[in-house]
Formats: sequence, C-alpha cells, structure tokens
Amino acid sequence: MSFFRSRWVEPPAGVTELEPTALAPGFRAAGVACGLKESGGTDVGIVAADEPGTVSALLLTRNAAAAAPIVVCRERCEAGAIRAAVVNSGNANAATGERGYADAVAMQERCAETLGLEPAAVAVAETGTIGVPLDIGRVIDGIDRAAAGLGEAEGGSFSAAIMTTDAGPKRCCVSAGGVTLSAQAKGAGMIEPGYATMLCFVQTDAVVADPEAELRQAVAGSFERITVDGQMSTNDTVLLQASGASGQPLPDGLLDAVLLQLALEIVADGEGASRVGRAAVTGAASNGEAERVARAIANSPLVKTALYGRDPNWGRIAQAAGQALAGAELPELGPGRIDAAEMAADTGEAELSVDIGRGSAAAHVFFSDLTHEYIRINAEYTT
Amino acid sequence: MSFFRSRWVEPPAGVTELEPTALAPGFRAAGVACGLKESGGTDVGIVAADEPGTVSALLLTRNAAAAAPIVVCRERCEAGAIRAAVVNSGNANAATGERGYADAVAMQERCAETLGLEPAAVAVAETGTIGVPLDIGRVIDGIDRAAAGLGEAEGGSFSAAIMTTDAGPKRCCVSAGGVTLSAQAKGAGMIEPGYATMLCFVQTDAVVADPEAELRQAVAGSFERITVDGQMSTNDTVLLQASGASGQPLPDGLLDAVLLQLALEIVADGEGASRVGRAAVTGAASNGEAERVARAIANSPLVKTALYGRDPNWGRIAQAAGQALAGAELPELGPGRIDAAEMAADTGEAELSVDIGRGSAAAHVFFSDLTHEYIRINAEYTT
Repeated sequence: MSFFRSRWVEPPAGVTELEPTALAPGFRAAGVACGLKESGGTDVGIVAADEPGTVSALLLTRNAAAAAPIVVCRERCEAGAIRAAVVNSGNANAATGERGYADAVAMQERCAETLGLEPAAVAVAETGTIGVPLDIGRVIDGIDRAAAGLGEAEGGSFSAAIMTTDAGPKRCCVSAGGVTLSAQAKGAGMIEPGYATMLCFVQTDAVVADPEAELRQAVAGSFERITVDGQMSTNDTVLLQASGASGQPLPDGLLDAVLLQLALEIVADGEGASRVGRAAVTGAASNGEAERVARAIANSPLVKTALYGRDPNWGRIAQAAGQALAGAELPELGPGRIDAAEMAADTGEAELSVDIGRGSAAAHVFFSDLTHEYIRINAEYTT
Repeated sequence: MSFFRSRWVEPPAGVTELEPTALAPGFRAAGVACGLKESGGTDVGIVAADEPGTVSALLLTRNAAAAAPIVVCRERCEAGAIRAAVVNSGNANAATGERGYADAVAMQERCAETLGLEPAAVAVAETGTIGVPLDIGRVIDGIDRAAAGLGEAEGGSFSAAIMTTDAGPKRCCVSAGGVTLSAQAKGAGMIEPGYATMLCFVQTDAVVADPEAELRQAVAGSFERITVDGQMSTNDTVLLQASGASGQPLPDGLLDAVLLQLALEIVADGEGASRVGRAAVTGAASNGEAERVARAIANSPLVKTALYGRDPNWGRIAQAAGQALAGAELPELGPGRIDAAEMAADTGEAELSVDIGRGSAAAHVFFSDLTHEYIRINAEYTT
C-alpha cells in the first residue's frame, strides 16, 4: 500500500491500489496549460462523466466572503446531477466583483457547450491569487483544448491542473467490492497571496443511492477534521460523482478512507508543516463539546509550536481545553488525564489525548505543527 | 508624557504622571526574593491598603482549568473588600492538585495573619511554571519579609515581584482631579512552560461607588481587547482597590486610559512581537458580530504574519471576516471596504479596518504580529 500510508487510515478489506493517475471507468479528464501560472504549468482542467445518469454531491465553503465560482455553483448548479467540473489554478477569482462572477459563468457555459451539457450540470472551481481579474480569454482557450483532450488515463494532468503550491499531487485510484474509485485533491494552506483552498474531486462507478449523505459523512470524518492554520477558505469545493455503471454499492469505509488519507496529505503538506498531530478528546459531555475542545487544542499556537519542538507540554493542552470550556466545571487536567508523550517522539504522526472527565463523548482533529517555515512563507511573501 | 505613549490612548485632561514606582496615598507594597526564581530575582510581593473601608473589585480568568490561586480567590475572598494581595512569580501553582490548593490557602492565611486582616480580605495571585509543587516554605518566608518591609515607595519592588519574562516593568502612578492612581501589570504571553498570565493591580485614593462596574468597564476596553496568541490564561487576575481617602471621584476615563496603556504594553511585549495592530470593524449587524469579526482578524495567523511582513494583504482580512460570518450575507470585501495600508508602513502601531456593510455596530481588537521569534520561544523551550 503506497497510498493508504497513515497510521490513522483503515482502508476496507480487499482494497487494491491501481495506477494513481487512472480514473474510475466511465470518467474522462484532462489538464492543459493556458498561461495563468507564470511557471507555464498546467492550470485548466476538466473531469467529466460519460454516463447521463451520473449522480453527484457538491459541498462548498461556508465562508461568507466566497469566491465567484462558489457563488456560481450555489446559484446555477444542480448539485445532485453534476456531469462535469471545470477548474483552473493560478487565479482564485475571489473578490473580483461582477466581472469575476461573469467570468465564472462564462467558464461554466463554455465547458457545457463544448461537452454538450446543460450549464447546470457543470461545476466551476478555481484556486490561486485573489483580487486579480481572470484572463478569461486564456481560460476559455484552455477549456476548449482540455475538452478536446479528455482521456480515460488523464487523471495525472487533471491533478496537475488543480495544484498551486502543493509539494506534490494528492490522488489515487482504488478498487474494492467490484467498484473503482478515483480522487484528486489539492491544498497546502495559504501560499498564494490570498486564500487557502482545498479542492477534491471523486469519481466512482459504484451505485450511490444518496451521494450527498455519503459525501457529507465522509467529509465530516476527513476534510472537516483537519486544520493547518484554522483559516476557512473562500474557495473550498468537494465534488463526488457516481455513475452506477458497476452495479455495485460502495464498500463500507472506502470513501471515508480515501478522503481521510487525502485530508492527511493536505495537513502534512500544510505551510511549513514538519509533523502531523491528532488531538483526541474523550470524556466530553457532548459531541459538540468534544469537538470544540479538540479544535481549541489543534489550533493553539502553543500546542502547534510544542509539536514542532517535540515538547510533550501537557500544560498547553490543559490550558487550551480550559479555554474552550470557559466557565464550565472541569476536573484538574494533569498528566493523569493528558497523554502528550508522542509529541516528544521523533515521528511524523503524533497522537495526543485528553480525558476531560465530563461525560462519554469523544472527537479528534488532525493538525500540522507551527514552524519557522510557516512564518517565512507567510511573512516574506508580499502582495 | 512617557507612560501614555500609544496613539490609541486618550488620557483625561489635566493628568499628571508621577514617579512610576510611587503608590497612591494610603497604599503600601513590597517585593522580596524568596528563591522561586532560579535567577534569584524578586518573586514574592504584597500590596496593601491602610484604610479599613477600602473597596475593591477582583476579576479572574474564566478558564475552566484555573490555577489554585484563582480557585482560592473565587471560594475564599470577599471580592468587594480586598485589603491586600499576596503574589508570587516563578511558579503558577497550576495543575498542582489538592496540595496546590492548600498552598494557596496557606499564602492567603499567612499574609492575613501578618497584616492583621481576615483571610477573606487577602487575594492570592501566582504566575510562572505549571505542574510543579510550590516551595511553600520559601514563599511563607518571603511573605513574612515582604510584610515587614511594606513601604509607600515600594511600587518598584512589588512590580518586580510579579514579573516573569516581561521585557520590563509595566507600571505607572498618575494624578488627575484630586486623586492619585497607581497600577502594576505583567504579561508577555507564554514563556514559562505552561500558561500565559496577565496580572494587574490598581490602587487609588478616589471614591469609587461601584468598583466592580468601573473595573469591568475599563477591562472590557483594555485587557479584554488584546490578544497575543488567542490563548486564555489559567491565572489572569485584575484587582482594583479604592480607599476613598481623597474624597474625590475618579475622573472620567482615567482608569480606562491607564488600563489600556498597560494592556497595549502587554501586547507590545508579547512573545516575539515586533509590532502592534488594531483591527477595527465597522458596519456590523450587532456588537457581538463586530467583536467576533475583529477577533477572527486579530487571531488569524495569516493576518499576524502579514503584519510582521509589512504586507497590506487585504485578502487575508476578507478571508478571516468571511470565516467569522460563515453562512451570513456579506457584500464583497475588496479594497473599497478594507484599509490595510498601515500594515505596510514602518510603524510600531498599525491600524487596519474593514466595513462589513451589514449594519452600524463596531468593535476593535489590539494584537501582536506573529514572528520567527515567537516560534523560537515556543518551540525551542522544552519542559
């Protein structure tokens, strides 16, 4: 197993890893360079399902300062029947006003036209710099070329088209229980002078009766459980497409395992990150309380620097938990209730746990450490 | 004016700055070294009011993992009639269990006994390392020597007794409208391997009819408006004592100005801080919303690193505001609504503002930048 490599991911029995750039049967993709990236890298991509009966689910950021493509998806897409997604990297098309909205609509309409689809069946996603008008002419040209070049083995070029400052591609193609599932993700925190963005596209030939419910559950256990810097992006998008062509259901846990591994790769590739931590809270009075405490620990700069410094500093964990529970009754959180030993270990993945002794609910959050490199990246990059 | 030096502080007309180590008439203090600090520095102090009719207000951290002295103050003090406070630095007496509680009680009782007061009239405050039992024998010895050395000009030694890693003392003695007010504060974020702590003691000979209301209002505009790392301490304590001996009321704005200047000194002395920012939010639908947005901006590591890097990165401000308002309607936050110009200026105090266009409420939060030095301090210090 080279994809499922985190200690925290449990793929279902019998899963096989295929070529990571492959796509689930019945899906085609492409990525081309249109000139948005100064590097000349691949920056426009399309992923499309052949099967007209493909069902889908589309989850979008809740950030109130959402980018144009998010607004277009909200207002103009049929989230349950997405046949194709058109994506660009290099420009987030965020805080770009009416022109930005019109540009995102133009992307949707051009992609739909070239593929012979209704615009509502085409999702739009963008990532990159903000506050800069999109060179829509180049993007339209890129869409035309990507549409003409769609192929069954182009998961690699599509994956490249969604990357910004990712250290490497985040993708897989796996099979289990008679179905195939492929996925491509990007995200590394905030590198471009604007917004962090996490994008993920998932394709499968499985029969998925309720794609929104399936995707929400899997996202709740993966992308909703990670933090690099506690900052919610304006462009986050996750799309699941299921053609049903295999006639088989998704094996239990397959989507969860794939999304969790991809989510952990985003954390590990977080800005300046050198280690990934898992903050596990038990003994909470409610699930909400457990999650609040886990997030407070995972987002504490004191805990994050301690993880970096390999310092098993249980006092910082107690402080963060106490802050999240301000005003509540709490037993004293000392070494008997906190296990921070792995923070001192020389491992890439470290567990830390706290039993807050208030009930039986539990939650966990994965997080990156806070390093000199994070400061360098975010302070030395100027707009 | 050497104390009121921030652009954001407006002292009342006619205020005079006295020797900063002086105390308001009718108050005495002392600080001695008892050996808690490895450096041999001053680490036990007492401040006391001569006047039996002195009124007071005592505000304590809401952190649910509060230290022993906080619990003792909550359970055993008459907050409106505090005659003296006993303080030590070098050990926070936090997460120290039943023994820690007994030690804090012992400090209160010894101080009360030596000064001829009821224990309920003595507040206890501690700051320093956590999870380490207090050497109560040394502290008791220090209390005895401090009580024997109380003096009207000992604001300096008392101020030294509450410092941990502060770059310098934070204190003043000012007069206006026929009253004198002295104050001593400490705080620099998290340096000791445990908890950040902010302590402040204020003495005045003014007549203060409702000290709790006065102190809450002044704290709401000062210590409650600052953030270094978003982390609430387990030991935060603010004590106001008013003897009434002058027969005059506190001039409007005097307490506010003193506490705001001290709060800003804590931010400026924050771990690794090189600059102080003021995040001002206008156009909010409610005061709570304005404050939530201002705190999201002030605590965003992306905004804090941009302040360090002198990057007028309005996109990061828009993103943080959008996150705080997740799910709400928001006009597009572009340069027309965000002013980040001063972030690029070479000044120690920088304003940034955003008009979120949802109403007429406003709020602001003062914050430090996030620097390489912060990482060095917090990652390289190991327990």
